Amino acid sequence: MKKLINDPENVLAEALVGIEAAHPELRVDHANRLIYRATPKAMGKVALISGGGSGHEPLHGGFVGLGMLDAAAAGEIFTSPTPDQLLEATKAVDQGAGVLHIVKNYTGDVMNFEMGAELAAAESGVLVESVVTNDDVAVEDSTWTAGRRGVGVTVLLEKIVGAAAEEGRDLASVAALARRINESGRSMGMALTSGTVPSAGKPTFDLPDDQMEMGVGIHGEPGRHRVPLAPASEIAEQLLEPVLADLDFTTGPTIVMLNGLGGTPLIELYLMYGEVAKLLEKAGVRVARTLVGNYITSLDMAGCSVTVLNADDELLALWDAPVNTPGLRWRA
Amino acid sequence: MKKLINDPENVLAEALVGIEAAHPELRVDHANRLIYRATPKAMGKVALISGGGSGHEPLHGGFVGLGMLDAAAAGEIFTSPTPDQLLEATKAVDQGAGVLHIVKNYTGDVMNFEMGAELAAAESGVLVESVVTNDDVAVEDSTWTAGRRGVGVTVLLEKIVGAAAEEGRDLASVAALARRINESGRSMGMALTSGTVPSAGKPTFDLPDDQMEMGVGIHGEPGRHRVPLAPASEIAEQLLEPVLADLDFTTGPTIVMLNGLGGTPLIELYLMYGEVAKLLEKAGVRVARTLVGNYITSLDMAGCSVTVLNADDELLALWDAPVNTPGLRWRA
Repeated sequence: MKKLINDPENVLAEALVGIEAAHPELRVDHANRLIYRATPKAMGKVALISGGGSGHEPLHGGFVGLGMLDAAAAGEIFTSPTPDQLLEATKAVDQGAGVLHIVKNYTGDVMNFEMGAELAAAESGVLVESVVTNDDVAVEDSTWTAGRRGVGVTVLLEKIVGAAAEEGRDLASVAALARRINESGRSMGMALTSGTVPSAGKPTFDLPDDQMEMGVGIHGEPGRHRVPLAPASEIAEQLLEPVLADLDFTTGPTIVMLNGLGGTPLIELYLMYGEVAKLLEKAGVRVARTLVGNYITSLDMAGCSVTVLNADDELLALWDAPVNTPGLRWRA
Repeated sequence: MKKLINDPENVLAEALVGIEAAHPELRVDHANRLIYRATPKAMGKVALISGGGSGHEPLHGGFVGLGMLDAAAAGEIFTSPTPDQLLEATKAVDQGAGVLHIVKNYTGDVMNFEMGAELAAAESGVLVESVVTNDDVAVEDSTWTAGRRGVGVTVLLEKIVGAAAEEGRDLASVAALARRINESGRSMGMALTSGTVPSAGKPTFDLPDDQMEMGVGIHGEPGRHRVPLAPASEIAEQLLEPVLADLDFTTGPTIVMLNGLGGTPLIELYLMYGEVAKLLEKAGVRVARTLVGNYITSLDMAGCSVTVLNADDELLALWDAPVNTPGLRWRA
């Protein structure tokens, strides 16, 4: 295992030290492994929390800041955050208007967010709504999931719903918007290589030199099937076909993300996006906004995922609203 | 070789298709492999061009946009752009106030930028000034370089000088500022693994599982020495020691970049930055601004580099000025 780490058991704690040093606009609670905005949002606005296992950076800690999350709870690598972390974060960010939990559909995450919400309600009367993302069309159930896994749509949802919360919308509206976005998006990923969990010390799975894993999960969970290595144009087809078959994306504008899984360089991601864009055009899908880069990763896994989201004027306006986080940053 | 590509000989051309599709704010000249702002800057302002071999993305094409470059010339992977590309770009971006060429110190780049500048002057009377960056303290001469190599400072320079050009400063001032920045910064990099050039089909160099290359170049050129794999804390020391020995960084604020080389995930880069920040504090270096991420890469190489730049109030204000490019984007 070749990694820029010290003790394999201490990677998350030490990465949080670096995040704090690099980002004075964030505040890190090291004891609870929580990342907050240094300056909380105004009283009366709905707050957003997400979190999950680490190893997917910039998701979620890199999406804390103006226009996106108020806090992120970091579990150990590929391990759910605890109910106590979520309780602590929920109480801390509530500005009197309630808190939205954004949860990727993995059994441990769903359970622990639920417990955190119940504890926060019981202890402090904080109103909590939750949205569980489940956009991955690859498999119906998986190693750590009943039902579809939550992946790339989570990034787009955090951006769009973050903007809505910043506008001052109430908790019910923010939660309804979040659920609508989850229902409007689909994703599919693939791996050329496995990532390596530091504490395991070896790749999560073996993948022969001439094969790739289609439909891989962001923890290296098995996907649909292993197939022979193929050119980018065929990979794009294999990723998009199940996405486009699952939902009609030809009825209005879309937002598309071509996401790298951590070990794939940007030049390959752009090349892949070129293939994806061609296929979407051929399929009658109009792309209004695009993200290409590493947004929801799986440690050093080489590979990519595609997310397509049905949008409308409202969603595009919220997408375009200012955002200022380490992982996504732009002005209107 | 496992890569998201089609024909190994066609990677650059196809990546440019994806860049164009993903970024309506850019314009791509496919015949000349040039990336421009879709909306040129105002007449009377100095224009900035950079370029070099591809495989270092987002450098340079990802730094075209408001507040940074006006155009980037993309050579084939690890291959200098041609004089004709630089001639074409220089003529195209000149808004009557002249053009600054930002050139990393590699023999082919320096020669071809020089020829491009001469041709542009002869053909159209465009005023061209050049700055050659040479911030890499690792080695004095290298495979493709007489003198030190130009690396990470190039990113910081493009940002700061881009802001100065946007303010309307004249060509002599912009060029002087660029040279001052180059003289004020130092870098050093290291590799855990080699990248793989698609047309070569195998890693550029062999590096045993228990060794790393200190002082590696961004094309995989040999560095100072190979040493046993070490914890991140020791790697940070080995990177910073020669940087801090080469220039005094304790006289004022600094800008620090912890840069990934393409195959290293963000969680490791943040962990490394935590180590770097601790050492800088111990050495009496005050860090005023930080960048952590993949900015000047070497295909899928795993590893990182550190850049430290002496700044002052003027440089910090220019650093903070708005920038809107695919690779760097923020508002004041």
